[in-house]
Amino acid sequence: MKGLFITLEGPDGSGKTTQIAKVAEYLRKHEVDFIQTREPGGTAISDKIRALVLDPEHKEMHDLTEVLLYAASRAQHVHEKIIPALEEGKVVLCDRFVDASLAYQGFGLGVGEERVLQVNNIATSGLVPHRSYFVDVSPQVGKERMKARYGTENLDRIEQKDLSYHERVREGFAQIFSRQADRIVRINGEQSPDAVFEEIVKDLDQLLSNHKKK
Amino acid sequence: MKGLFITLEGPDGSGKTTQIAKVAEYLRKHEVDFIQTREPGGTAISDKIRALVLDPEHKEMHDLTEVLLYAASRAQHVHEKIIPALEEGKVVLCDRFVDASLAYQGFGLGVGEERVLQVNNIATSGLVPHRSYFVDVSPQVGKERMKARYGTENLDRIEQKDLSYHERVREGFAQIFSRQADRIVRINGEQSPDAVFEEIVKDLDQLLSNHKKK
Repeated sequence: MKGLFITLEGPDGSGKTTQIAKVAEYLRKHEVDFIQTREPGGTAISDKIRALVLDPEHKEMHDLTEVLLYAASRAQHVHEKIIPALEEGKVVLCDRFVDASLAYQGFGLGVGEERVLQVNNIATSGLVPHRSYFVDVSPQVGKERMKARYGTENLDRIEQKDLSYHERVREGFAQIFSRQADRIVRINGEQSPDAVFEEIVKDLDQLLSNHKKK
Repeated sequence: MKGLFITLEGPDGSGKTTQIAKVAEYLRKHEVDFIQTREPGGTAISDKIRALVLDPEHKEMHDLTEVLLYAASRAQHVHEKIIPALEEGKVVLCDRFVDASLAYQGFGLGVGEERVLQVNNIATSGLVPHRSYFVDVSPQVGKERMKARYGTENLDRIEQKDLSYHERVREGFAQIFSRQADRIVRINGEQSPDAVFEEIVKDLDQLLSNHKKK
């Protein structure tokens, strides 16, 4: 595949969505042929699955059901949208991918990294991002930002979970990052949005120029 | 687990649903403590996932998405309903289980037995039925019965697939059966419903009396 697959990862409240918008603007300005997408979701079928997972009424949802639904949504997204775009040589900019499932479900829910990875390897047919930017904030900062933005009563089923869950998620991201430091760039998300973006662009510029040379 | 987990398998139009009803009636008459359930579905969340998979509008659904959705529905069903009932010592009578996914998705869609099995082992936490009755009919007979029952335009997304798909499904069931002949009892579904039921009861009686002795 000729394209370039870039993901942004980070907990809720990390400012990831702001950064995705900034990166998209940057790519547009530099006339890079790209698509922007997000997980869970990204296609009509994936969006329906996403709605099912996030519905706060589904309190009885089993952890393995959640893992498999995210993977199903991802399988559709990868094969219907991401792989075709990469095959056309496009840059694919994606808000969250397998790393998020490993952190949230493998570590956060405690399903374990191995089972989550096995299911997701099948879902993605083994597709791995070329670069992942991991915007890191402490669970406390993430939660405060989410509350300020949405109010407590509007948080979804995942966001409502307690702080120890979010601590495990962060520990998960840290472990995944430390093992794949060649693919994942960790960025301190507690800086100003402009400072975070500056760090991303420094790496992204290099990445795009290497990619063009190919 | 003290219970007894019994599944009925077979293609559409095999008369499986008629047989399930007869077995349930038999268990009631013999005062066996049992629950009757079905796949895909069986719980509120599983039913929503089932509706998503079977919606004829989802023509773009990728094979891997289908595999993972069925597995997600099954994970919920197994952990919310089947395992708790087995732990209470009940007989669980279930219309379809993992064998159906292996036959329909592994063989029919061509996803391959290994990937389907891997995903489903995770979904079920390794739960395998004690006994499975496989009601076998040729694809031609199955399809004719379905058409006579529902008319062509009311067939769902799976039932609409062509005959070669259903041939592969049958071959899949045959292979699964031949490898697990100690667990799976094959019954000729082209006999009269009463003759089919008689064969099931012959085995079931033995099974229940062995189970009681434990």
